[in-house]
Amino acid sequence: MSSGEDDLIARYFRPLAQSPGALGLIDDAALIESNSDDLVVTTDAIVEGVHFLPDDPPDSVARKALRVNLSDLVAKGATPAGFVLTLALREVRENWLAPFAAALGDDATRFGCPLLGGDTVSTPGPTMISITAFGRVPRGTMVRRDTARAGECVVVSGSIGDAALGLAILQGRAGRWDGSAAAADAMVERYRVPQPRLMLAPAVRQFASAAMDVSDGLMGDLAKLCAASGVTARVEAEAIPFSPPARAWLSGDPERIATLVAGGDDYEVLCTVPENQLSAFIAAATLAEVPVSTIGRIGAGTGTVQLLDGNGREIVLPRLSFSHF
Amino acid sequence: MSSGEDDLIARYFRPLAQSPGALGLIDDAALIESNSDDLVVTTDAIVEGVHFLPDDPPDSVARKALRVNLSDLVAKGATPAGFVLTLALREVRENWLAPFAAALGDDATRFGCPLLGGDTVSTPGPTMISITAFGRVPRGTMVRRDTARAGECVVVSGSIGDAALGLAILQGRAGRWDGSAAAADAMVERYRVPQPRLMLAPAVRQFASAAMDVSDGLMGDLAKLCAASGVTARVEAEAIPFSPPARAWLSGDPERIATLVAGGDDYEVLCTVPENQLSAFIAAATLAEVPVSTIGRIGAGTGTVQLLDGNGREIVLPRLSFSHF
Repeated sequence: MSSGEDDLIARYFRPLAQSPGALGLIDDAALIESNSDDLVVTTDAIVEGVHFLPDDPPDSVARKALRVNLSDLVAKGATPAGFVLTLALREVRENWLAPFAAALGDDATRFGCPLLGGDTVSTPGPTMISITAFGRVPRGTMVRRDTARAGECVVVSGSIGDAALGLAILQGRAGRWDGSAAAADAMVERYRVPQPRLMLAPAVRQFASAAMDVSDGLMGDLAKLCAASGVTARVEAEAIPFSPPARAWLSGDPERIATLVAGGDDYEVLCTVPENQLSAFIAAATLAEVPVSTIGRIGAGTGTVQLLDGNGREIVLPRLSFSHF
Repeated sequence: MSSGEDDLIARYFRPLAQSPGALGLIDDAALIESNSDDLVVTTDAIVEGVHFLPDDPPDSVARKALRVNLSDLVAKGATPAGFVLTLALREVRENWLAPFAAALGDDATRFGCPLLGGDTVSTPGPTMISITAFGRVPRGTMVRRDTARAGECVVVSGSIGDAALGLAILQGRAGRWDGSAAAADAMVERYRVPQPRLMLAPAVRQFASAAMDVSDGLMGDLAKLCAASGVTARVEAEAIPFSPPARAWLSGDPERIATLVAGGDDYEVLCTVPENQLSAFIAAATLAEVPVSTIGRIGAGTGTVQLLDGNGREIVLPRLSFSHF
């Protein structure tokens, strides 16, 4: 009576669906009960061979699939409320699915974002994981992308470029540098497993005028935020937070900055903060134990966003971000 | 400054995103504003070569992708509120994307279910469309699958098996029958473009004790509903609503009933209704201009669901439904 698909769901995913709204995954739908909060909805898919590598460990694939969505929620100031999962598989492989589901469940618990439902389909193509995640914000408080104003500060969390360097290392494109094996591993880990800055969400909601997460490259994403807001921006390269390994790699060739600031997969929060709120934002971020750096300034007009070196000269980048097409 | 992905979204999908919650698709997230309703969430993906054929017209692919989700919402008694779209494409082809987006927009308007957001990714594999759709129900009124009780009537909307026959025709598996070309086209159309029974949702919410949509095959889906509810069911084959073409095809070989009742893609509503509510449900369905048929009865216990012929003998089916794995 039960099909292979039902068995798969029962075996691997029902244990993750402990939230009442998941209805034990026996229904075709999940329930998000009403309260006074607005619901923030985000959806992001990752494809084998595009967003993750065929030999990436399945547990890191699961974590990446969920965390790229959590990163979007954080940038909107939202608290995670749950997610639905679409999983397209060529075949059912126990040694892939078991660690995938275990890691997904672990992250769902860690980030308070339970599995609510999903769909499992077969595909003759690459594995694909599409997640739609939900977050709650008090009514009317979602932080948008199109509300930055001239004169505000540009702030970013964490460090930028580590994931792009990690991918370059994995693909043998990083070239010569004197980084240790441990440093290289740390960069690869940043590529494989994003660290969504959940603790920063309340500060973003309280103090940021506009925000988005950095997923396609710092400069390109800032350009998108500026275009949406009808403003422009200048970024001081020397103020961008690079990790020690990224800084060491950059010192080998200054042109490598293009990979770091336009390479993507950072999953840090990029936001604009009015100058008179900046110290309060930094204090709140510090309390939340999330490092933040002020990297530039929003300007009036709609020109190209500029990256400036220590002498105020523009560093021209071959491209600003990753694009699928 | 703008990428190919942004151009694609701006060109094809922003015109569809007129709902305020979509934020013009310039943000990473969409907003569903709170009210007193519960939110029903469902997600269904369709994959080229699995759920639709590579040469299916792109407009019918778009309609199928959205409508299979709307069908789930209807069966939960929900009113559509919007959807997010994940689109995985090998390449950007104007002559595929333009009719796809136009049809999706047309259906979104027709069914009052606006595009709220999405993600567009490249894939080296088949085209895949994953939609997560949202519906609203008054608090606490979502119709579940696990709440059928012994003695209740089994009711199904519309006609059963047309889509499975349409797929058999497309795949050259239908064999000899005296159906007209127009009848064959009508069956293929049922396979390609489901007709979600939106007008039936209020009646389902008011009178059905349990419900789901028929997507994988009538008998298999009824078996799932019964398993979830801890009951069993008997279905009278002669009471199943077959369309004239399906009936003509069935008359050529009685074993073809297996294709009709276990073939899937019907996207009709399957529900259980307490006997003392049945006439009220039928009256409401009639008012909504949705044909419904009482096809069987729920029984106590947890045995296999049975399909009975006109003499009360069981018709044994080789399988009950479609399964991906």
